[in-house]
Amino acid sequence: MALDDGHVLTIGVDLGGTSLRVAAYTPELGVLKSIAMRTRLEAGPIAVVDDMCDAIRLLIDEHRNGRTFSGIGVGSPGPLELPAGRLHHPPNLSGWDGFPLLGEMQKRLEQTVVLESDANAAALAEYALGLGKTLGIESLCMLTLGTGVGNGIVLNGKLWHGATGMGGEAGHMTIYPDGPSCGCGNNGCLEACASATAVVNAAERIIAAGKAPGLAALKSTGTSLSAQVLAKAALDGDLDAKEIYAQTGRALGICLAGLINILNLPLYVVGGGMANSWDLLSKSLFEELERRSYVYALTAQGRPAANGMPCGGTRVLPARLGAEAGLLGACILPLYSSDTA
Amino acid sequence: MALDDGHVLTIGVDLGGTSLRVAAYTPELGVLKSIAMRTRLEAGPIAVVDDMCDAIRLLIDEHRNGRTFSGIGVGSPGPLELPAGRLHHPPNLSGWDGFPLLGEMQKRLEQTVVLESDANAAALAEYALGLGKTLGIESLCMLTLGTGVGNGIVLNGKLWHGATGMGGEAGHMTIYPDGPSCGCGNNGCLEACASATAVVNAAERIIAAGKAPGLAALKSTGTSLSAQVLAKAALDGDLDAKEIYAQTGRALGICLAGLINILNLPLYVVGGGMANSWDLLSKSLFEELERRSYVYALTAQGRPAANGMPCGGTRVLPARLGAEAGLLGACILPLYSSDTA
Repeated sequence: MALDDGHVLTIGVDLGGTSLRVAAYTPELGVLKSIAMRTRLEAGPIAVVDDMCDAIRLLIDEHRNGRTFSGIGVGSPGPLELPAGRLHHPPNLSGWDGFPLLGEMQKRLEQTVVLESDANAAALAEYALGLGKTLGIESLCMLTLGTGVGNGIVLNGKLWHGATGMGGEAGHMTIYPDGPSCGCGNNGCLEACASATAVVNAAERIIAAGKAPGLAALKSTGTSLSAQVLAKAALDGDLDAKEIYAQTGRALGICLAGLINILNLPLYVVGGGMANSWDLLSKSLFEELERRSYVYALTAQGRPAANGMPCGGTRVLPARLGAEAGLLGACILPLYSSDTA
Repeated sequence: MALDDGHVLTIGVDLGGTSLRVAAYTPELGVLKSIAMRTRLEAGPIAVVDDMCDAIRLLIDEHRNGRTFSGIGVGSPGPLELPAGRLHHPPNLSGWDGFPLLGEMQKRLEQTVVLESDANAAALAEYALGLGKTLGIESLCMLTLGTGVGNGIVLNGKLWHGATGMGGEAGHMTIYPDGPSCGCGNNGCLEACASATAVVNAAERIIAAGKAPGLAALKSTGTSLSAQVLAKAALDGDLDAKEIYAQTGRALGICLAGLINILNLPLYVVGGGMANSWDLLSKSLFEELERRSYVYALTAQGRPAANGMPCGGTRVLPARLGAEAGLLGACILPLYSSDTA
């Protein structure tokens, strides 16, 4: 399914717990203009929706001239209930539990609004504008590793919603049943093992246990530990930081092995800020895939055919679009359809 | 999608490592006649295909009169590569690695042959003739717990194949990364934790460790331990046998929590011989679902609506069709379509 090449305008909104971005977009020209602002969480959801809708109206007025307006796409922190368009205990939007985001936007704008989780928006972007487009494939599963772990699944060109819009929550697949506690109430979720937060928590744990002298020294200089700081330490040769990333790749590999066995898609994409550390993650990740997914072992891209098995072409790759995936995905949401169980 | 009500005849084949069953079927009358025989594995795949095709021709000749013949469905042990219809290292059909089952059948029969894994055939039967029909739902995921663990996924009325026909292999999802070894080369797969074989292995391990006096006594009488024998011991009050089933339910719950988070379907079905022990499995299974799947916790069937969340209606139930699911599913395969990534 290709983007419409006509003179079409859409608006994309990337709603985050910290910042809010709104962009005007055409398939031919990409993002025409974007507006970024702080998300005024302290003012409550109605104020944030008002900010958002003001920016949307402004951009429509500025860029509509002569173009066909195709609607507004919104990527929001989840969990989201669809098609109702309501949030349920979103950990990154405190005070928004039960908020009918879609309804409040439609009431103000009287336009088509397509709401998806931010991870779904990123997956759609990677499908339509990133790796999916380059490789010419119609289905993919994307994990977005940031503060949390988001997931979006595209099956035959459509975002998979499941029955209540909550399909694609592999960030909360259990990897280690007795592993670190997760914000969702479970233990050992992928999010608790492979997010940027999890990497920092793992470092803090081994520092507290007196097992990571290099990282302890780094921390004692007043450096605030972050996933990036730890990645740099690993690249600079710190063995403990390397091991934290290797373990993160392992957790990611266990999760992806499960997803490959269940879905058997041609492409799995790892995005979000942590994907910048692909070289630190990938060795242990692929070791786990080979060991834990015979579907991967039989079908991995580039594997020599055995017993007449053609190359199934399963690929696991870092995302192509980077930090813009969420906003771009929101911009193209009105141009694609989704699929419900 | 309803079964065709016309005068249609199909043939279903349930190919197992031990026995081979072939049935003539009409949607109105069900199975008209079935033929069961030993699978002559020692004679090689060509001999088995000949046996199968002889029985198929016989049943077509006997039952075709006036009916429209709609094709032959075959449920086979996996892993299968589709659409090629070739087996890859099937653990229950030794000597069949790389065998082009579909091609060999089509060559002999010159008829439409639809080949699926036995677990996919069972899932289709449960969808079209079992719980899916009763509940009026269009998507489900079924786990078949027998000697191994099979899996079939129906999305919007179609079996999900994935890119190479290997979608729906949740039996090899990793549950405990350092758990018991699995025939696929991994550790801690669902199959290694929740199949009938896994239950017996767990009993043998604790007997060998001297921790299960009741089961050791049972074994010392010459009773061959099987999942059924252990289920009876549990129902008769043996605490160790009870604990083995509770742990099995726990592994199943961890797997299903992951599937619910990923797919968000309205129905998950547990079938195969182990489903007869549902009462021994279900308590720990549902404990894990509540803890490990916030999608389940938000959407479980019968849960009071919170924050405007309507009842999502996620159900996890034992299969309705029992041991005939595989054969019935094979019979209706020619009447349904499948979906590919």
